[in-house]
Amino acid sequence: MRIAVDAFGGDNAPAEIVKGAIAAAKELDDEIILVGKENEINTILKSENVPDNLVSVRHADEIIGTDEHPVAAIRAKKNSSLMVALKMVKDNEADAVVSAGNTGAYLAGAFRVLGRIKGIKRPALTTLMPNVTDSPGVILDVGANADCKPFQLVQFAHMGSIYAEHILGIKNPRVALLNIGVEEAKGNALTKETYALLKNEEKLNFIGNIESREVLSGGADVIVCDGFTGNVVIKLIEGTAGTLFSMLKQAFYKNLGTKLAAAVLKPGLKVIKGKMDYSEYGGAPFLGIDGVVFKAHGSSDAKTIKNAVSATSAYLSAGINEKIKSIVATMQKEAAETEDDE
Amino acid sequence: MRIAVDAFGGDNAPAEIVKGAIAAAKELDDEIILVGKENEINTILKSENVPDNLVSVRHADEIIGTDEHPVAAIRAKKNSSLMVALKMVKDNEADAVVSAGNTGAYLAGAFRVLGRIKGIKRPALTTLMPNVTDSPGVILDVGANADCKPFQLVQFAHMGSIYAEHILGIKNPRVALLNIGVEEAKGNALTKETYALLKNEEKLNFIGNIESREVLSGGADVIVCDGFTGNVVIKLIEGTAGTLFSMLKQAFYKNLGTKLAAAVLKPGLKVIKGKMDYSEYGGAPFLGIDGVVFKAHGSSDAKTIKNAVSATSAYLSAGINEKIKSIVATMQKEAAETEDDE
Repeated sequence: MRIAVDAFGGDNAPAEIVKGAIAAAKELDDEIILVGKENEINTILKSENVPDNLVSVRHADEIIGTDEHPVAAIRAKKNSSLMVALKMVKDNEADAVVSAGNTGAYLAGAFRVLGRIKGIKRPALTTLMPNVTDSPGVILDVGANADCKPFQLVQFAHMGSIYAEHILGIKNPRVALLNIGVEEAKGNALTKETYALLKNEEKLNFIGNIESREVLSGGADVIVCDGFTGNVVIKLIEGTAGTLFSMLKQAFYKNLGTKLAAAVLKPGLKVIKGKMDYSEYGGAPFLGIDGVVFKAHGSSDAKTIKNAVSATSAYLSAGINEKIKSIVATMQKEAAETEDDE
Repeated sequence: MRIAVDAFGGDNAPAEIVKGAIAAAKELDDEIILVGKENEINTILKSENVPDNLVSVRHADEIIGTDEHPVAAIRAKKNSSLMVALKMVKDNEADAVVSAGNTGAYLAGAFRVLGRIKGIKRPALTTLMPNVTDSPGVILDVGANADCKPFQLVQFAHMGSIYAEHILGIKNPRVALLNIGVEEAKGNALTKETYALLKNEEKLNFIGNIESREVLSGGADVIVCDGFTGNVVIKLIEGTAGTLFSMLKQAFYKNLGTKLAAAVLKPGLKVIKGKMDYSEYGGAPFLGIDGVVFKAHGSSDAKTIKNAVSATSAYLSAGINEKIKSIVATMQKEAAETEDDE
């Protein structure tokens, strides 16, 4: 398969992106195509002593910055590395894209260039969910759709379940609805209606509601919520963990005794910090886009990019989008009934 | 002022509640009335050698358990300590209630017995918000209203601001809207509409949106959100902090070296744990109820109850409900326009 890597997306572009792509190319059978300013990419390839046919390069002149307005950026910068990479999938010059760039522009661009899988109302932003166990789960939507309808959440549940099973290797993934109580009757209008739909989905292992207090304890493999709530959740975990670690750091630097004690504990703390940091997991695909588009974390280094490219390769091999299409086909009737005027 | 204390609400009732009330009675000028099973209360008072006129007792036969269904419980148990205490305020036999009991039953009972302040659409559950600074802020709603309308959030903002100013002693409290981006245009339908209203409220120090990543950094004194989101937030902070501390514990108990190191760091960790635990702050009132009803945390011990009674006394002295009423009066026109059929 052919994977286009946006060499100019992310905080550490292009050097770390190119290095990560090289590492992936050495391990995988896939063809890796680096997209972006040709000269700069070639300079890095040369300095890394990369053999001639390991990766190829597709020139793209422009760069979409992390802080640019998504829709304005994709309109104005048709020759950006991101848009060119997406166009390659559309034109069947590549089978997938990996980018660590501007999330909003990436999602908007993917939506515009590739569209959504027929029958899927909205694509979802997905993130691997850290937890105390050694196997992370997945949470969606984490920001693509601030306002959701119940049927969308059911589709998120199916897409998340397929992803958890085939990419995370979890048999019969436990799907839970994020809610403010465990009982069926709890919640807001959206979660109450969604619960009623989810419990009738025979192809899902729906285990009921999960409270936010429990999301890190690994009680569910797929956590479903609207994009507003999901975005609040992932940023709050990040903020709470960050705050705690900075408080710990202060306590550790208090005096010589605490500094010495902290040194002993450092390796253990590093493991914990890694587990709590969802960026460590590399990234996740936009589920529901009619094409394979994988979002690596903005702060990705070479290792993360290599992991993201490997995950994209696995996603392609597992035929995830085809599996989503076949599930959607069984839901067409309901989908048609709730279709809105978008 | 006369403060009725529900002696049979909370995980540590009645002993810790009674002891907390005694401690408060010794410090405050207010009259403390313990409500619940007379015999049991008197036994504790005797064992604590309490002088005769320090506190009084009002008998109430029944107890509402923490896990009982709120509405069913308040209907079935009119003679519960909780309902009798609320009735005392209604009948002008007390000026305020403090309870650590079933939150849902307390809120439903207060709503039924005392009603809401005229013009306030819905009362809000409020919680003190821990942060890295030494002065906590306040967040509301944290669960009373799973679905909210923009105008309700504006009322929450005013009530929270009054509380922060007069009880937490914060001059000109910074009010922020919890959202998934800092820009005005970000968010779901609710937050976008709410933002448009809040920025025109001249009596509020509205500082714009706050992302969940920042809620613990102390960037706002009053954080406003719907009850679904607020409930997710407080439980997620609790869950994340709990998970991190249990991971730390594991790392600390790994071997003798780490155990010794952990012992050195223990006092610092305890301070951090206390800061992150909103239950340490004692509790908060139901804002918007036409009466002073203060909810102490379910796990309250004597010290927390004493703090809760003191806070209630301060709330009464500051005339918070009167201040809310006068703000509402200026909003009557809008309130009337958005009045629904409840």
